[in-house]
Amino acid sequence: MKKTAGATLIAPLAACSYEGADKSTSNGYTPSDRLKQFRKIAASPVLQKEKVKQSIIIESINIYQNGKHFFLKAVSTDGAVGICSGNGKYIKNIYPIILNRIIPHFEGKDARDLEMLIENTYMGMLNYKWQGLAFWVGVAYVEIAILDLLGRVSSQPIGELLGGRVREQVGIYYASGKRGNPAEEEVEHLQGLVEKSGAKAVKYRLGARMRYDSASTKRDKELIPLVRKTLGDDATIYTDANGSYDVAMGIHIGKILEEYATDFYEEPCPFDHYEETVAVSKGLNIPIAGGEEEVSTRQFMWLMDQGIYDIVQPDLLFYGGLTRSIKIARMAQSIGIKCTPHISGKALGFLYMAQFASCVRNIGPYQEFKGNSDKVPVESLSSSLQPQNGLIDIPKEPGLGVEFDPEFIAKGKLIRSI
Amino acid sequence: MKKTAGATLIAPLAACSYEGADKSTSNGYTPSDRLKQFRKIAASPVLQKEKVKQSIIIESINIYQNGKHFFLKAVSTDGAVGICSGNGKYIKNIYPIILNRIIPHFEGKDARDLEMLIENTYMGMLNYKWQGLAFWVGVAYVEIAILDLLGRVSSQPIGELLGGRVREQVGIYYASGKRGNPAEEEVEHLQGLVEKSGAKAVKYRLGARMRYDSASTKRDKELIPLVRKTLGDDATIYTDANGSYDVAMGIHIGKILEEYATDFYEEPCPFDHYEETVAVSKGLNIPIAGGEEEVSTRQFMWLMDQGIYDIVQPDLLFYGGLTRSIKIARMAQSIGIKCTPHISGKALGFLYMAQFASCVRNIGPYQEFKGNSDKVPVESLSSSLQPQNGLIDIPKEPGLGVEFDPEFIAKGKLIRSI
Repeated sequence: MKKTAGATLIAPLAACSYEGADKSTSNGYTPSDRLKQFRKIAASPVLQKEKVKQSIIIESINIYQNGKHFFLKAVSTDGAVGICSGNGKYIKNIYPIILNRIIPHFEGKDARDLEMLIENTYMGMLNYKWQGLAFWVGVAYVEIAILDLLGRVSSQPIGELLGGRVREQVGIYYASGKRGNPAEEEVEHLQGLVEKSGAKAVKYRLGARMRYDSASTKRDKELIPLVRKTLGDDATIYTDANGSYDVAMGIHIGKILEEYATDFYEEPCPFDHYEETVAVSKGLNIPIAGGEEEVSTRQFMWLMDQGIYDIVQPDLLFYGGLTRSIKIARMAQSIGIKCTPHISGKALGFLYMAQFASCVRNIGPYQEFKGNSDKVPVESLSSSLQPQNGLIDIPKEPGLGVEFDPEFIAKGKLIRSI
Repeated sequence: MKKTAGATLIAPLAACSYEGADKSTSNGYTPSDRLKQFRKIAASPVLQKEKVKQSIIIESINIYQNGKHFFLKAVSTDGAVGICSGNGKYIKNIYPIILNRIIPHFEGKDARDLEMLIENTYMGMLNYKWQGLAFWVGVAYVEIAILDLLGRVSSQPIGELLGGRVREQVGIYYASGKRGNPAEEEVEHLQGLVEKSGAKAVKYRLGARMRYDSASTKRDKELIPLVRKTLGDDATIYTDANGSYDVAMGIHIGKILEEYATDFYEEPCPFDHYEETVAVSKGLNIPIAGGEEEVSTRQFMWLMDQGIYDIVQPDLLFYGGLTRSIKIARMAQSIGIKCTPHISGKALGFLYMAQFASCVRNIGPYQEFKGNSDKVPVESLSSSLQPQNGLIDIPKEPGLGVEFDPEFIAKGKLIRSI
């Protein structure tokens, strides 16, 4: 494969350019049937190109800033526009990567080849070496701007392009961001989150983020029974350890969670401690959730092949966008588990979650909701973009289904790198 | 742990904040003795703080550009300076990450706490989510500037600070960057590389980089015998597949390499295809080299624990600098294998390799050499910085052992991010 972005590239099959080659078992390696199925899903497109009749050539993709807000704008040679709002926390750190290493793979190409272009972006310019949040978030933002463009040009919401809409509303849960506060205070905070949104589920944090100590363990042990007792037996209660534990403590805390019928236990061990996560999962009956830090398709497949997850949680940005994340959801479906994506707050992360949920059958019952806390100036005719009785309406207008304030967009300042 | 960079942080033990907690086997998880040893090494400092008598407070770290060149300058409150030349290919893409997410963890701190500051940088600001080349190369450049500062202030080459110098010269090999050219042409190219440097070893490329096809396989099969025949039985011949193969082809090509007594076989499978790499390694007798794309300490330990490498190759930049890479070398030593780091070309990568080699006992016989192809304006009194008879003298002056042209440094333009 040529390394220059300008050349016409033939995309290798996603995740593996020699799909099917490992048929023989004579070399001592036999991929599981599940892994074979995952590979097939990885190699099968998500975007239904046939739903966009004409070619849409991408003329330009640029990044703009308007105050604290950032957005990417993809413009076709016909003058059609797609917009993706981006979180300043990421854009301020990755704009050179987007401008130098990602956009060149898309400009001048047919937007309908989106998935091939993403694969070429990964394989070209040695970008595979850059695999990680800083690369994939950039790819995700470019992808979402192009999906918005494709939906607008073809007059359909993006869920229609990504397999077809299967629901009009999505149930949400709120996650508390707090850690280290007293158990009683945290329970009050959780009650407040439920009351303001009508959410039927909440999530709270355990451990001390990527470590634990005696204070965090004391809080864990007070909080677990107190949350169940206060919210009641019918409440759906999720927990997130953010990689705090080793195997022994992960299992110890997990058994307490089981005692109080906790609905899932997210990231008991540090994200890259695979063996430890496998051991904790095998030592417990509580549903285990995880996957938000995964950036490698192969490693995600390995983790799912171990059977350790009951709920798999690709981050829609860190994992590189909606089409890649939907493939993870389809792999999850093939083994009978749920996919509840992780979403980063700020900007329009909640909207990308809603559009993901619009077309994925095996989402869990409640999706994390962080809302439009940045007050990005968008509206939708079909949705208030706010939860009511714990549900949000998924916008059904073309593309992402929201309209930006035209003045806000017009005043965006073009971002350039050195 | 507080997430703000400004706070005084207590560093967790490297790689695992609850070192030793997995003692019990009653939870069904028993780390191997090798893994336990690796964890101990990960938690043991490399930098010998006691060799720098006074505290060296870092006043500022900045990035500068002079034409195509970039460098980082670390300045102490006493006005001492350390300089790290950085590759524009990286710096142009990661300068905001360095400025926003890395440098704040070092300014105002004692440079002697370097390793704790690196660990805090990873754990702080949620930077662990950013693990990957874009993050770790920035950490590496900051680390190298600080090591230069520490060495200059204490009047010793950095090898003395990182365990003590064990050699004054290092044997080098040249790697051909070519792929896709005819076998005969490639062999001539390899001969040229040997002749110009006196190198006793060369490396050539196999496959088609992260994939293979019939043309690349044809070339592989012509090249493998031809290189051995032309360079002779005494030549040390390395090969690099850059992740081109699946298991079946990886073993097939490996057996041909064995037939022609090839000295190592690097990255047969894509870097994140761990199971496949294990299978290829177990199916062959030829020494297997790899690890240049690894960014996770836990995953590196897992790979080494599988016993698949004969030569482990952390990239001194991608893996986050010299102290982290030396820990990998020490883990390798604990299981009796060699560590031959991968180095990125351009800037002064060859110098960082030489300083690494100065203090690591278990380097392989030949280290990759890419030279000062960017013509960074530096000199050393103790080394020509060029190979002679296949060896380069490792600079022995304080710090990195080279002096930059003062005018070049003075004319550097300060780089800022948005």
